[in-house]
Amino acid sequence: MTKTRNPVGWGYIEDRLDGARRQTLVQAMQAFLGGVGDERPAPDPADVPLSAARAAIPDSLADCVTDSHHNRLLHAVGRSFRDLAGLRAGATLPAPDAVAAPRDRRELEAVLAWASDAGYGIIPFGGGSSVVGGVNPEDTGDLPAVVSVDLQHLNRVLEVATTDRVVHAEAGILGPDLDAALKPHGLAVRHYPQSYFHSTLGGWVATRGAGHFSTLRAKIEDRVQALSVRLPDGREAATRALPASSVAIDPNRLWAGSEGMLGVITDVRLRVVADPPHRANQGIGFDDFESALAAARALLQADVWPAQMRVLDPYEHFVSGAMGGRPGQGALMILGFEGERADLVNAHAAAAEEIVRAHGGELRPKSDKGGSDWRDTFFAQPYLRDALLDYAVVADTFETAVPWSRATEFYHAVRDATLDAVQRVCGGGGVTCRVTHAYPDGVALYFSFYCPGRHGALVDQWREIKAAASDAVMAGGGTISHHHAMGRDHKPWAARELPAAYRAAVRGARRELDPRGLMNPGLWFED
Amino acid sequence: MTKTRNPVGWGYIEDRLDGARRQTLVQAMQAFLGGVGDERPAPDPADVPLSAARAAIPDSLADCVTDSHHNRLLHAVGRSFRDLAGLRAGATLPAPDAVAAPRDRRELEAVLAWASDAGYGIIPFGGGSSVVGGVNPEDTGDLPAVVSVDLQHLNRVLEVATTDRVVHAEAGILGPDLDAALKPHGLAVRHYPQSYFHSTLGGWVATRGAGHFSTLRAKIEDRVQALSVRLPDGREAATRALPASSVAIDPNRLWAGSEGMLGVITDVRLRVVADPPHRANQGIGFDDFESALAAARALLQADVWPAQMRVLDPYEHFVSGAMGGRPGQGALMILGFEGERADLVNAHAAAAEEIVRAHGGELRPKSDKGGSDWRDTFFAQPYLRDALLDYAVVADTFETAVPWSRATEFYHAVRDATLDAVQRVCGGGGVTCRVTHAYPDGVALYFSFYCPGRHGALVDQWREIKAAASDAVMAGGGTISHHHAMGRDHKPWAARELPAAYRAAVRGARRELDPRGLMNPGLWFED
Repeated sequence: MTKTRNPVGWGYIEDRLDGARRQTLVQAMQAFLGGVGDERPAPDPADVPLSAARAAIPDSLADCVTDSHHNRLLHAVGRSFRDLAGLRAGATLPAPDAVAAPRDRRELEAVLAWASDAGYGIIPFGGGSSVVGGVNPEDTGDLPAVVSVDLQHLNRVLEVATTDRVVHAEAGILGPDLDAALKPHGLAVRHYPQSYFHSTLGGWVATRGAGHFSTLRAKIEDRVQALSVRLPDGREAATRALPASSVAIDPNRLWAGSEGMLGVITDVRLRVVADPPHRANQGIGFDDFESALAAARALLQADVWPAQMRVLDPYEHFVSGAMGGRPGQGALMILGFEGERADLVNAHAAAAEEIVRAHGGELRPKSDKGGSDWRDTFFAQPYLRDALLDYAVVADTFETAVPWSRATEFYHAVRDATLDAVQRVCGGGGVTCRVTHAYPDGVALYFSFYCPGRHGALVDQWREIKAAASDAVMAGGGTISHHHAMGRDHKPWAARELPAAYRAAVRGARRELDPRGLMNPGLWFED
Repeated sequence: MTKTRNPVGWGYIEDRLDGARRQTLVQAMQAFLGGVGDERPAPDPADVPLSAARAAIPDSLADCVTDSHHNRLLHAVGRSFRDLAGLRAGATLPAPDAVAAPRDRRELEAVLAWASDAGYGIIPFGGGSSVVGGVNPEDTGDLPAVVSVDLQHLNRVLEVATTDRVVHAEAGILGPDLDAALKPHGLAVRHYPQSYFHSTLGGWVATRGAGHFSTLRAKIEDRVQALSVRLPDGREAATRALPASSVAIDPNRLWAGSEGMLGVITDVRLRVVADPPHRANQGIGFDDFESALAAARALLQADVWPAQMRVLDPYEHFVSGAMGGRPGQGALMILGFEGERADLVNAHAAAAEEIVRAHGGELRPKSDKGGSDWRDTFFAQPYLRDALLDYAVVADTFETAVPWSRATEFYHAVRDATLDAVQRVCGGGGVTCRVTHAYPDGVALYFSFYCPGRHGALVDQWREIKAAASDAVMAGGGTISHHHAMGRDHKPWAARELPAAYRAAVRGARRELDPRGLMNPGLWFED
C-alpha cells in the first residue's frame, strides 16, 4: 500500500491522528495547559500562497521537472513546527521554482546540467523530513531560480554485500525499503530515526542523523563505508569502499553532514548488522534524574553497550505515563540490549542490572510486549504535535549533547531557560527531557516543550522560545544539534559553535566544488 | 632517565640492538636470505651532508630557533626505511633551513608569525617517527626557506577530566608521558602505535594513527573529543568539547588526518579509558590463513570485541617463531580481551573461543607471561630493521585495509606482487603478513618484506619494491595506508585512492586557512 504524503503536515495523510485518540490527546493537553486555542485545521494545500515560479523548464525535462503548486508546496518546507505553523500563517511561502524528480542517474545528470547552466540554485531533497530548515529555499540571494531535486526515484538497492555486511543503495531509498531489501539476508539497518518511514539514506548521511539504537549502532556517519556524490558541473566523486584508512582527511566525512551544500549524495555503502535474534529490555526506576544519569555514565564507561538507553526525566516520565510516575518525581531508564549471541546479550544485560542497582535503580516488571512497544509511541509523536497545532499548541523538540561532567548543571539550566521562555511567551506550559543517546564521554539530551500559543502568532512565539533554549544550550557548552543537523534554523547558534577558521575552510571547499554557490544556497556562512 | 634520540636511526640510541641479540638476528637473516651485505654502520651524524640553511633567524627567537646541523638533521627526515637508508647514501639531504622548538604557546605564536611574515614553509613536527615521508622538506617549490616546528616542549597535560574520561593535553606530549599523567587516576590511553615512545598526541591525530588495541579502542580520530589549531597568520580554531554532534561536517575530522597542512594542532581532548584491570589473552592455531580470517570476521560480526586481534599468516608465524610453526603452514591468531568488568571480559573471551573452535581453530596453551610479551617484540621491531640496514638488508613494512569479501584474494595478490618484486630486485627474500586490526566490514593487513640489498642502491631497490606493492594494493581495492598516513611516500597512490573532487575540496580549504601554502609544503595535490 502506498501512502500519500501530507503536504501540510508530518508524514502520511493516512497516519494522521484522528477520532478518539485525537480527542483524548487534546483533552489531556487542555487539562494540562489549562486551556488550548480553538480548533483550526491545516489549510487546504491549494490555498497556501507560494512565491511565483520563475524557472524555465525545458521540454526535454518535462517528464521529471514540474512547477505545479502541489509539488512546489511539498518541497517548500521540511516538517518542523516552524515549517508547519508557517504555512498556516497565510503569508506567501518561499517555494522552489521547480521540483525535479529524476528517475535515474542519467536524468539526475540532465537536471543538474540544466540547473547549473541556468545558474539556478539546487536543493537536494530526500524525504523532506528536516526539522531544522534544511531544505527551505530562503535567503537564496539573487539566484534567478531554485530547483528542489527530489531523489525519491533514485531508490534502488545496488548490492547487498553479505560477507561485508554492507548495503549499497541509492540515496533516495526510504528506511523501510532499505530494511525490506536486507531482510531476506537476515540483515537489518537498525537505524530508526523518528522519520524512519519518510527519510532517506542520503538524508541520514547528509545530516549526520541518529536513531533509536544508535547508542550501540552508532550515528550514521560512523557507518558509511563509502559514498558517491554528483556536482552541479557534472563532476562525480566516489570514495573507495574501505573499513578504515589513514590517508589524509577522511573523504566520507567531508560529505557526511554536508547538508546538500557540497553536491548531491547519489549512493551510499552503509554498514549494516544481523537482524538481532536476541533482545533484552528492562525498565529501571530511579529516585531522580541525577542518579539515573550517574548510572548511565557508569554503564557506558564499564563497556556495557546497550543498543538503546533512554532516560526519562521526572516530567517526561509523568507525561509519557510510562509505567506510572508522578510529576517532578522519579526518573525512568529504559535499556535495550540486542545482538547475534544470546550469551553476550545476557552478559551485558546482567552487568547493566548490577550497575543500575548499585546506583539506586529499581528494576521494573517486564512489559509483556517485550520492548517492542517503543515503536508505536515513538513514530506517532510528530503526528501528535500536528494534532495539537490545530489547537494553537506550540510544541517542539530540540536535542543536544554535552560531556557528562556538565550534564546535570546543563540539564537544569536549559530546562529552566526553556520553561521560563515558555511561560513568558505563552503564559504557561511544560518542558520535558529524555536521554536519547549516550557515550562514554557524554550524553545526548532531547527536550520537548509545549504551551498554549495563539493562532496567527505561532511562529513568532516558537522563535522566541527556540532562541531562549538555543542560547542556553550554547551557554552551557552543548551542541546546537546532536542528530537533527544544522539547517537554517540553527545557523545563528552554529556560528557560535563552529570555529571561524573551520567555517572558512568549508567555504573554501565549497568554492572548489561549486564556485557559484548553487548547492543548497543560503545554508552556509558567508563569513 | 632521558634517552637520546638517534639522529640516524629509529628511536633512542640507548635502545639500539647490539651485542648478542644483534648477532643472533644477523645470523638468522643471513641463513634465511642466503647471505647479506658486509657491515656498514650508519654514518656519523656530523658527516651527513645537508642542504644549505637559508633562514634568517631573528635574535628575538634565538632561544627557540636554531639552524645547527644536529637539529636540522634530526628534522630532515622521519624514520622510514627510505629515510634512514637515504641518509646513508652520501647525497645532500634536503633539510629544514631552521628548527624551532617553542617552549610555550606564546613562543609558538612568535615562531609562526616569523615564518609566516618571511614566507617560509612550516612543517609541524611531533615525534618525527613518520614512516611515510610526512615531515621531509622535499618538493617545497620556490619557498625561500622551510622551518620545522618541533612541538616537543608543548607537552603539558592541561586537564584530566575523570568524569568524562577525557585527557586534555598539548599536542607535543609523548605516549608514555600521557599515560603517566593518567595512571594516578586509574585511566590509560591504550593507544600503542609501534612509535609509542617517540610519537606525540598531535602526531597521532594528524596522521589518523592506530595502535595495538585499536580493534576495540578505535583509531585515534574516533577518540578526539575536541582539538585546537593555530594557523600561520595567527588565527586559532578550537572545536567544542562534545561527545557527538550533527552540526555540519565534523570540525574535528577536518583536522584529523590533515598531516600538518591545515595548521598546527596545538592541543587535543582525547577520550581515554579505565586502565583495564581484567585481561584475557589466547593464542589459537589454524590450518591456514583463510580459516583464521573467516574466524576473525565471524568474531567481529557477532559483536565479540577483542581489544586486539592479530592473525599471523604462515610466513609471519614461522618467522616470528611465536609458539612454533613451519614455513608456509598454519596461521596463528592472538586474541586479547580487556575491560573494567571481569564478567564481560570473560563472556567475550568465551564467545570468542566458541567461534574460533567452530572455524577449526585450536586453542594454544597460555603463555606464562599473561599476554604482556607482545610489548618487547612489538616495540623492538624497528630497531631490528635498523640493525639489518647495516648489512644492506632492504626491510620495510606497509599496511592497508580491505573489505572482508576481498581479503583473501587481496592478500594473495599483494603478497605475490611483493614477493615477485623482492625477488626481481634483490634476487631473493621474504614477505610476511599479519592482521593488525579488524572491523565488522573488513580487515587491516600489515605486510613486511626483507631482502638482501646492495649498499649504495638501497633506496632505489626499496622504491621499486614499494611501488610494486603499492600498485597491487591499489589494484586490489585496498587503501594505501590504514594507519601510517599518506605522507610524500604514498602520494602517487593516494591520488588514485582519493577522488579528484575531494582533492580539490581540501585544496580549497587549505587556500582559506593558508593562502600561500606554507604549511607542510609539497604534501598536498596541486591538481
